[in-house]
Amino acid sequence: MEQLFVVKIGGNVIDAGDALKAFLHDFAQVPGKKILVHGGGKIATAFGERLGIEPNYINGRRITDDATLELVTMVYGGLINKKIVAALQSEGCNAIGLSGADGNVVPAAKRPVEGTDFGWVGDIKESMGTSTLELLLDNDLIPVLAPLTHDGTGQLLNTNADTIASAVAVALSKQYTVRLVYCFEKKGVLENVADNDSVISLITKEKYESLLQENKLFEGILPKIDNAFAAIGKGVSEVLIGDAKDLLQNTGSTVKGTLFK
Amino acid sequence: MEQLFVVKIGGNVIDAGDALKAFLHDFAQVPGKKILVHGGGKIATAFGERLGIEPNYINGRRITDDATLELVTMVYGGLINKKIVAALQSEGCNAIGLSGADGNVVPAAKRPVEGTDFGWVGDIKESMGTSTLELLLDNDLIPVLAPLTHDGTGQLLNTNADTIASAVAVALSKQYTVRLVYCFEKKGVLENVADNDSVISLITKEKYESLLQENKLFEGILPKIDNAFAAIGKGVSEVLIGDAKDLLQNTGSTVKGTLFK
Repeated sequence: MEQLFVVKIGGNVIDAGDALKAFLHDFAQVPGKKILVHGGGKIATAFGERLGIEPNYINGRRITDDATLELVTMVYGGLINKKIVAALQSEGCNAIGLSGADGNVVPAAKRPVEGTDFGWVGDIKESMGTSTLELLLDNDLIPVLAPLTHDGTGQLLNTNADTIASAVAVALSKQYTVRLVYCFEKKGVLENVADNDSVISLITKEKYESLLQENKLFEGILPKIDNAFAAIGKGVSEVLIGDAKDLLQNTGSTVKGTLFK
Repeated sequence: MEQLFVVKIGGNVIDAGDALKAFLHDFAQVPGKKILVHGGGKIATAFGERLGIEPNYINGRRITDDATLELVTMVYGGLINKKIVAALQSEGCNAIGLSGADGNVVPAAKRPVEGTDFGWVGDIKESMGTSTLELLLDNDLIPVLAPLTHDGTGQLLNTNADTIASAVAVALSKQYTVRLVYCFEKKGVLENVADNDSVISLITKEKYESLLQENKLFEGILPKIDNAFAAIGKGVSEVLIGDAKDLLQNTGSTVKGTLFK
């Protein structure tokens, strides 16, 4: 099967203009088929403040109310997505920006209320079709996905970008050999959190169990690792976590980040 | 050649929730290949006020400065475009929302400064390619175009939706028999401006000349008519101006609006 890279870029890079520009320059050089999934960053929060939209938190998690959904639709689906697409076009990369509603590429359902009502938050449907993404990929178009989905009845929904990247990677693993690359602010999973050069280059399921027993992993990385193994369990060949600056190595054969297999 | 409808919907319908819903319901029923181009409406102005973005006019025309470009990218490319796409998806219409940067579907250049600098306003390039739009149309995807373009160097640009509709119709007239339908708030070009039922059903170039000589046309309609004849002169088979409520008739064989041939 042909190789496909699904790359997720987070808010910290999106917020930093120069870092984003450098990242997109590198992304344009990644050979072959590829998809970019982007998060939101602080731009939405800043526009929310200017618009007088008060963030609404329950148990430390932000609720997507009507005003917040409009805000993220504007900022994620409009401002960030189109700026990334225009920048990639200028790098010779034929990017096409999409929300999950466009071509129905990421169908979802409003998260069921179990104690907390998170508002307009979408959980991705397992039965995601891939014909539109395949059509674009097979015609050398590069999908750039915003963290928005829809429920098929006209309702847009807010969905975590990590989750979209994982769901898209899993769905496309039937047609492609997929490497899912999560770009973040560290070089990878670190043996010693204080030392950014102590990257663990390969984590197998067995290695993960022993690291957990030795209590060697900092807490913030655990959901990412669980996410990585979940994707592998559902057909994704390789998941990699690394620094946005190391994208070209991490989509090549001499990776600098942490590979999960 | 196969028939293609290019339909433009303006701000007055976009601003009215129920009218927009009814229009999108009808648009979903238009048979065969079709493209929707949407304008902006007052939503951008309202968000601009809330964000404290002062409109900047020169000679009665609004200038697209940096802040205004961000605003329209958010509102046109994000909020309006994604709401329309989600609504069409709920009507069984496989819509895919695009700015002119996405897939490079509408390449443009910043309007040259001749006296007035309009800021980030894009004039569409004559050499527009159509391969991406054709790919989508041939695979039963329905492009929904926001009034935004780009210059290929990473710069997004603000471009009039009427002009985008016309340029896309002209470019695709090599591959399809195109009917370009401008939806507005009147039933068509009126013989008597005070009587909404006095629609002139067909205007040929000769008829236009005589109407002009008799001074029978109200001023606001003249740019639309010039636009219509320009499109016909460049290969579009039919241009029609009519009421958004009459879309199904105006994409059928018993049109209610004004046909230009």
